[in-house]
Amino acid sequence: MQENETPMTSSIESVLVLSGGMDSTVLLYDLMAKKRQTAAISFDYGSRHNHRELPMAAATCEKLGVIHRIIRLPFIGELFSSALLKTGPPIPEGSYDTANLSQTVVPFRNPILMSIAVGYAASIGAKEVLLASHSGDHALYPDCRKTFNEAFDQAVRLGTDNAVHLSFPYAGLDKGQIAEIGRRLGVDFTLTWTCYKGGNRHCGRCSACVERSQALKRSEGLDPTLYEDQGEHHGR
Amino acid sequence: MQENETPMTSSIESVLVLSGGMDSTVLLYDLMAKKRQTAAISFDYGSRHNHRELPMAAATCEKLGVIHRIIRLPFIGELFSSALLKTGPPIPEGSYDTANLSQTVVPFRNPILMSIAVGYAASIGAKEVLLASHSGDHALYPDCRKTFNEAFDQAVRLGTDNAVHLSFPYAGLDKGQIAEIGRRLGVDFTLTWTCYKGGNRHCGRCSACVERSQALKRSEGLDPTLYEDQGEHHGR
Repeated sequence: MQENETPMTSSIESVLVLSGGMDSTVLLYDLMAKKRQTAAISFDYGSRHNHRELPMAAATCEKLGVIHRIIRLPFIGELFSSALLKTGPPIPEGSYDTANLSQTVVPFRNPILMSIAVGYAASIGAKEVLLASHSGDHALYPDCRKTFNEAFDQAVRLGTDNAVHLSFPYAGLDKGQIAEIGRRLGVDFTLTWTCYKGGNRHCGRCSACVERSQALKRSEGLDPTLYEDQGEHHGR
Repeated sequence: MQENETPMTSSIESVLVLSGGMDSTVLLYDLMAKKRQTAAISFDYGSRHNHRELPMAAATCEKLGVIHRIIRLPFIGELFSSALLKTGPPIPEGSYDTANLSQTVVPFRNPILMSIAVGYAASIGAKEVLLASHSGDHALYPDCRKTFNEAFDQAVRLGTDNAVHLSFPYAGLDKGQIAEIGRRLGVDFTLTWTCYKGGNRHCGRCSACVERSQALKRSEGLDPTLYEDQGEHHGR
């Protein structure tokens, strides 16, 4: 948690679930550009890449002057099973193969994070919880699908007496379109993390890296990410 | 978390959200009587009475040989506002007055707890998450209402590809009827905690105590609870 909380929490309209990845970081810039009073909430749930994502989320919030809360959920790593977790089997390489990707499901992760964000929003008087879900989110993750998000929003409205609702402003966009918005808004993509492996650099080979590099147009030389298969001085 | 995990988690059919209060404790006995393979999950969310409830939940599970997980959620006490929390204003006395009771709402608490229980259930292959919600649960708590529970169950089914669903077997009963079931099953009600204040004894005056003593028929001498207004040797 940051010390610097100059903006009064009572003026906060919305809470963004910020992973430190490119989608939610672009959405944060987008909200700032629209002068929305937004706080950000991030979660350390024991994934292999949380220790890469979260410092980037914190750095972006500091840069933009946004209140940022980091919530630690150590029980997920202790009790849940997934290759995405430090306690799970290794991250599979290759891209969109169902058997590979299914190993990276953390059961019901998004609803856990969203529920906490909703409780926090209600506590500070914010009316909206924002997620950067997009059309390319894998149908394999049932808790990321549009039908789920709509059902969960309905539950949120009922469970807060309509004090809070969910918003998915990028639901109709793909990751490439989000990258375009980010470029236009001057997002520093080197301050975003995507790789599931959480090494010193993006591996460039896991499914998450493959999607990132396509969205950021690595093949056209537009991706500033430093990947493992690049030399020290070729990254940007 | 208990060391003793003799029953294989893979044979667990259901996960009970166990507060250590009388309703969920009766439901645990009820499930045991029906030979259901059940694990229990409890939460320390920083309430004034968690330190009274949780040891009782643990003692009951040990007595019945049930796997028991206690999940700590310190961020709720740190970030959320409610008189129910140690960090909040004092618990109001008196009973069902709306202004009093509304101070004890912990925003979106139940969905946070249920989401975690669902993720845990999915991780161990259990198909059902059980809650001891009943007809007397206050309409003031929007996340305890029947309409909310139904909407949330729908979200759970969608968000787990129908691997997990919620069950509220006591939804049609009131607290007095639950007490009757407990008596029939031999529940030791002195191993359950209800008082919001979390003192050495049940205060007998907060809204939770008033409901407990009515359900357990204190006025008819059937309530084994030791209340603050009783002498040391009268409670049993």
